[in-house]
Amino acid sequence: MFVIDLNCDMGEGFGIYTVGEDAEIIRHITSANIACGFHGGDPAVMRRTVRLAAEHGVAVGAHPGLPDLAGFGRRIMEVTPDDVYEMTLYQIGALQAIASGEGVRLSHVKPHGALYNMAAKSRELADAIAEAVYKADGNLMLYGLSGSQLVASAERLGIRAIQEVFGDRSYENDGTLTPRHKPGAVLSQSDEVAIQVHRMVTEGKVKTREGHMLPLQADTVCIHGDTAGAARHAAVLRAELERLGIAVAPPR
Amino acid sequence: MFVIDLNCDMGEGFGIYTVGEDAEIIRHITSANIACGFHGGDPAVMRRTVRLAAEHGVAVGAHPGLPDLAGFGRRIMEVTPDDVYEMTLYQIGALQAIASGEGVRLSHVKPHGALYNMAAKSRELADAIAEAVYKADGNLMLYGLSGSQLVASAERLGIRAIQEVFGDRSYENDGTLTPRHKPGAVLSQSDEVAIQVHRMVTEGKVKTREGHMLPLQADTVCIHGDTAGAARHAAVLRAELERLGIAVAPPR
Amino acid sequence: MFVIDLNCDMGEGFGIYTVGEDAEIIRHITSANIACGFHGGDPAVMRRTVRLAAEHGVAVGAHPGLPDLAGFGRRIMEVTPDDVYEMTLYQIGALQAIASGEGVRLSHVKPHGALYNMAAKSRELADAIAEAVYKADGNLMLYGLSGSQLVASAERLGIRAIQEVFGDRSYENDGTLTPRHKPGAVLSQSDEVAIQVHRMVTEGKVKTREGHMLPLQADTVCIHGDTAGAARHAAVLRAELERLGIAVAPPR
Amino acid sequence: MFVIDLNCDMGEGFGIYTVGEDAEIIRHITSANIACGFHGGDPAVMRRTVRLAAEHGVAVGAHPGLPDLAGFGRRIMEVTPDDVYEMTLYQIGALQAIASGEGVRLSHVKPHGALYNMAAKSRELADAIAEAVYKADGNLMLYGLSGSQLVASAERLGIRAIQEVFGDRSYENDGTLTPRHKPGAVLSQSDEVAIQVHRMVTEGKVKTREGHMLPLQADTVCIHGDTAGAARHAAVLRAELERLGIAVAPPR
Repeated sequence: MFVIDLNCDMGEGFGIYTVGEDAEIIRHITSANIACGFHGGDPAVMRRTVRLAAEHGVAVGAHPGLPDLAGFGRRIMEVTPDDVYEMTLYQIGALQAIASGEGVRLSHVKPHGALYNMAAKSRELADAIAEAVYKADGNLMLYGLSGSQLVASAERLGIRAIQEVFGDRSYENDGTLTPRHKPGAVLSQSDEVAIQVHRMVTEGKVKTREGHMLPLQADTVCIHGDTAGAARHAAVLRAELERLGIAVAPPR
Repeated sequence: MFVIDLNCDMGEGFGIYTVGEDAEIIRHITSANIACGFHGGDPAVMRRTVRLAAEHGVAVGAHPGLPDLAGFGRRIMEVTPDDVYEMTLYQIGALQAIASGEGVRLSHVKPHGALYNMAAKSRELADAIAEAVYKADGNLMLYGLSGSQLVASAERLGIRAIQEVFGDRSYENDGTLTPRHKPGAVLSQSDEVAIQVHRMVTEGKVKTREGHMLPLQADTVCIHGDTAGAARHAAVLRAELERLGIAVAPPR
Repeated sequence: MFVIDLNCDMGEGFGIYTVGEDAEIIRHITSANIACGFHGGDPAVMRRTVRLAAEHGVAVGAHPGLPDLAGFGRRIMEVTPDDVYEMTLYQIGALQAIASGEGVRLSHVKPHGALYNMAAKSRELADAIAEAVYKADGNLMLYGLSGSQLVASAERLGIRAIQEVFGDRSYENDGTLTPRHKPGAVLSQSDEVAIQVHRMVTEGKVKTREGHMLPLQADTVCIHGDTAGAARHAAVLRAELERLGIAVAPPR
Repeated sequence: MFVIDLNCDMGEGFGIYTVGEDAEIIRHITSANIACGFHGGDPAVMRRTVRLAAEHGVAVGAHPGLPDLAGFGRRIMEVTPDDVYEMTLYQIGALQAIASGEGVRLSHVKPHGALYNMAAKSRELADAIAEAVYKADGNLMLYGLSGSQLVASAERLGIRAIQEVFGDRSYENDGTLTPRHKPGAVLSQSDEVAIQVHRMVTEGKVKTREGHMLPLQADTVCIHGDTAGAARHAAVLRAELERLGIAVAPPR
């Protein structure tokens, strides 16, 4: 039987600021990546979000980012592997403790934004992240772009890599996502998204923008939480996948 | 045999900024309280300081503070018990992970600056800190001002309280430290300091500014790291205590 | 003829975070107090908000706050008069430059949150703020709680004080606002609010919670922007005031 | 007669943290570039440093940087021209107000660290900085690397460009500084430095690492303040230049 995990970034508010429809989306996903205070999130938001996930039986992961609240961790910064190791370990540890206070154990780590993107391409940064995950808890799973350096680093280190795919994004022949400004980069129809994810899960491939069939592994699908109607999209995608015979569950 | 711990706040730099003579002082103390990124410290400084402590066989503790880098955590802020619980747990967890990456396990927690002072007097804030320490790891010891609310909170919760005394500060009859602006508030002579600490440890009392004999428990002495000549003072105090027959060692 | 200014705090988002219905509320007010990057706001938000105000012919003022983004500047902090002078002047200057880049000159300054409240009671902090306003530009008006120390400080220094009243809050006999947790502290009905403001403007008094008639000067009314339906309330209040014969315009 | 300006970055501490020997170096330079709170500096440090410069008759300029205190503004960040315009204008304005409170008018702006380096090569970012300087005050001079995009942008906009040279760094044939890790990149002997500066000022050229004679314009020399013995080096360089018949004075 085919199984897929639906993950979503959560707890990315800060102080009085809120972002995303966490309380709605949590009902439709199986893994929550919780921001850890660098690109978003703060100790109070983290605790609240851990509780929310626990109430809905959703797996809890750390979502570490660059130290750039002003840019929401989306801006590339010139960081060294040591910087990345240290900031990742710091953030995972902070969430581990907050979660432990709620009786929750972390299941995974997914880097955020520019950190995720840089680690997809740079072996050195990917290694730094994998090392931090391993040091924090060797049982943590590491989420990374399917086929990326992050996946390779996790496997080299003997931690479990969870390969992430994007149901609503078009792929290039080299396995990267089509840049958003190009036509056809974003799939906006729920049925299109479900079909793409179905093929990824059952056939292990995606049809690229140029029509090529690209092999990839699909362990988890990223649900975007900060777009209008995100919760409804997540619900529709989940129902559609289940209708197509794919079980939705967190990785084990 | 009488035993005393010598503790010092460490790793309070940030980015390119340094403060204190950590590399010198570490040679003379038995417990290091390492800043966790809120009032001072950052992931790189934390890692470096954990290593330094480990190299010298010094016990490693977390030194959480208020989120006020500009004020170095010394300014009172209007925080709730929930705020304090969350920020303390966050900071302990961050250091636990960084330390664990270096193969080091935390032994204790000592709140910093205004957080330490507020928790000395407020039962609610003291309870919040003790709860965070307990949730992070029930084996952690909690350092607090001798006779303060923090000590009481730790004991109520069943975690080990380590009562801190100040060798170089004069005490008032009510057990508080004489405010720094008053004459005689600070003992600047090393021999005076050693005599005060010796009496605290061996007799369980201190002579207050007004001449009263105040009972107190002395488990650890605070070594100030940010004053000129701090390392030399620490060395002299340690030698003097040992000459007087007091063993210097971390609490067990 | 009676005239009143309607002012509202604006531009209090940060990075990707937004708060308040600025684009709606701006249509109904006459003065905008723009956050300056400490409790909220950032250079991009400031510029965008200056432009918005300019497009609607609304007077632009600085809204400096405490350096506490995590607490949105609402938490009391232990700051000295020097701290307050410096942080206020810094923030005013930053907005002056951003505004000047858009061809806009600042008309006023209104402190935010805990800074506003502390300066209402402390002559020293009020003096520090007034001094900063004066140094930034002697023609700036200073908004403060009607009858507060801030008003007194402005007058002593020879800068124009604009006395602020709250249409939707009940007053105590001593001129302070009834704390929010007390019954009757908040007036939720627009007609009640309009009646209270009308009396403040035309008779120079307010009926306190205990029924006393308290004299006060009402130069400007604070419109809260961060509550649900804020824009609609502002529109209704403005229409009601105009119906009662009160002109709505910024202070001159 | 030949004239050169000696400029140094100053006021780069933060809160309790200090860096550099400002009080010593100020005695030997003619222009101080004061950090504005983003990569370093805070309102109190800014005020103190303005006073220090004023007391020594040294010209005061703004030294805006990237919003990265943790990296001291030295890490490249992915910022847009709009970001750069806004953050530069914000920082200049903040210092203008603080300086104006001390009766001082700013003479110039010199970007810091990664912002300086990015603007040396990117016309778009250089234009953004020049625009911010112009909007803040059309009489401000803009300091930039000799021959860089920043100089070109200033000239296009009609503001005065001050071309900066490095006396203690070797140059490549293309006009860039030799990267620090290459042999011969740094000139450590004071007499070597004086000779290089003398040639730059009097002949308008520098001998590159590869022996080529590169033409450049030398309006100001950068004095590094954060290296050991910086103040002494500055004193020696100044004395040597004066001995060689070059007047040391701020640009007019």
